[in-house]
Amino acid sequence: MKPFENIPQSLLKSYSKLTQKKYRQSERKFLVEGVRLVEEALKSDWEIESIVISNHGLVKEVGTLTNLKINKDVELFSCSEKDFKKLTDTVTSQGIIAIVKMKEYQLKNFWNKPSKRSVIVALDDVADPGNVGTILRTCDWFGVDGVLLSKDTVDVFNPKVVRGTMGAIFHIPIISDVDLVPMIDKGVKDGFKVITTILDGGKPLNKFAFPEKAIIVFGNEARGVSAEIQNLSYDSITIPKYGDAESLNVAISCGIILNSYRA
Amino acid sequence: MKPFENIPQSLLKSYSKLTQKKYRQSERKFLVEGVRLVEEALKSDWEIESIVISNHGLVKEVGTLTNLKINKDVELFSCSEKDFKKLTDTVTSQGIIAIVKMKEYQLKNFWNKPSKRSVIVALDDVADPGNVGTILRTCDWFGVDGVLLSKDTVDVFNPKVVRGTMGAIFHIPIISDVDLVPMIDKGVKDGFKVITTILDGGKPLNKFAFPEKAIIVFGNEARGVSAEIQNLSYDSITIPKYGDAESLNVAISCGIILNSYRA
Repeated sequence: MKPFENIPQSLLKSYSKLTQKKYRQSERKFLVEGVRLVEEALKSDWEIESIVISNHGLVKEVGTLTNLKINKDVELFSCSEKDFKKLTDTVTSQGIIAIVKMKEYQLKNFWNKPSKRSVIVALDDVADPGNVGTILRTCDWFGVDGVLLSKDTVDVFNPKVVRGTMGAIFHIPIISDVDLVPMIDKGVKDGFKVITTILDGGKPLNKFAFPEKAIIVFGNEARGVSAEIQNLSYDSITIPKYGDAESLNVAISCGIILNSYRA
Repeated sequence: MKPFENIPQSLLKSYSKLTQKKYRQSERKFLVEGVRLVEEALKSDWEIESIVISNHGLVKEVGTLTNLKINKDVELFSCSEKDFKKLTDTVTSQGIIAIVKMKEYQLKNFWNKPSKRSVIVALDDVADPGNVGTILRTCDWFGVDGVLLSKDTVDVFNPKVVRGTMGAIFHIPIISDVDLVPMIDKGVKDGFKVITTILDGGKPLNKFAFPEKAIIVFGNEARGVSAEIQNLSYDSITIPKYGDAESLNVAISCGIILNSYRA
């Protein structure tokens, strides 16, 4: 492995801007933090521009990286602990961040699924980064064929979301910042059926037969799925309630429904 | 409703200590923050010592409280926004907190369930407050008969956990700080069977028949269920995987398994 060079201050400054969505969108790059996630990025076919480590504390951890094939095009930088903090909001950082180029999924491939049985998850204005990260991790467990994130949903390249995905972002096709109505309409034309999830009054999940090609939509934590998406719905499902809680967390609903889809 | 009086500084100081576990444990009181949760506390049979509101911003919200019967024994206090911050770690607070006395569940009632079919959830060293809050909320949705939290599990009266439960804490019997092995042993003597959840190699959930009385154990986020609890296990279950994720979030597993138990 080539040596880690001191990062130029101008580059550090430009990387630190990637903590903000508008710069991620204009630069088409994002930050991937922590040993495990950087490993996932290295194992994937995503293009890594550089890896930055903190001079402080991480020496042990970097040892694990030397076992991985780091493409020679990846730049390796180190910096002071103070400078490193400009790249992260985590309190106890492992001191390693990769700068990764966004992969642009081809829309024409998104709906054109080879297998007869396919499931796409669509997030309609899901606001909490922890929820979106956990949902993507759950979609990865259940082998979902793709995920769509509406324009109002929190950005998938938000560092907190990236951490929560535990690498899912590198395993499944995810398209963010989507205008959900026309995008879902395309899927419907390709034979998908829209299933929305509602707290109350939908078909009970335990008696529901999923269509072969399903787009399952999860809505905002407080308001649920928007009316315009409900209008596209082929069917609505509800997870039966046996106790007193007013609602289920959206990521929990997603896990329960995907497990039922596969079971 | 009687007027809100200025809170004495000595009382504010003693309430602010309830943000720490050791003071909650010695005082047997905890903090319940936000309009919705305070309403849940007021609707419950838990004893409320007092309600504190911030002078700043909350006037609109307090209107909703006047619709609720506030027992005349509940003291009503107000304080400055600066003082209110001593009671909370939330960034955007609604400016209302109740000081609630802990309810002590009788252990002898815990295992003695009238219905033939009962489910107890036990948390073995679950570390993340968000996970514990979401698990309790999920248990509340599925009408779980009781929840046990091991000594190593994050404190149920931690303000972040209380918020995450969305009121479950007032709906279902929860015993925290439990020495899990002898406690579960008691349940086994009362006819309960211990079901542990493991990532890999357990009976597939979709083919599993739950016993009539089940204690379902969920383990630490990184290490899973401890060996000493696995030793008590009647059966282990695994949620089948269809994709590439290494693991599922523990709260997601809990939701999926409770839904299967009920389905």
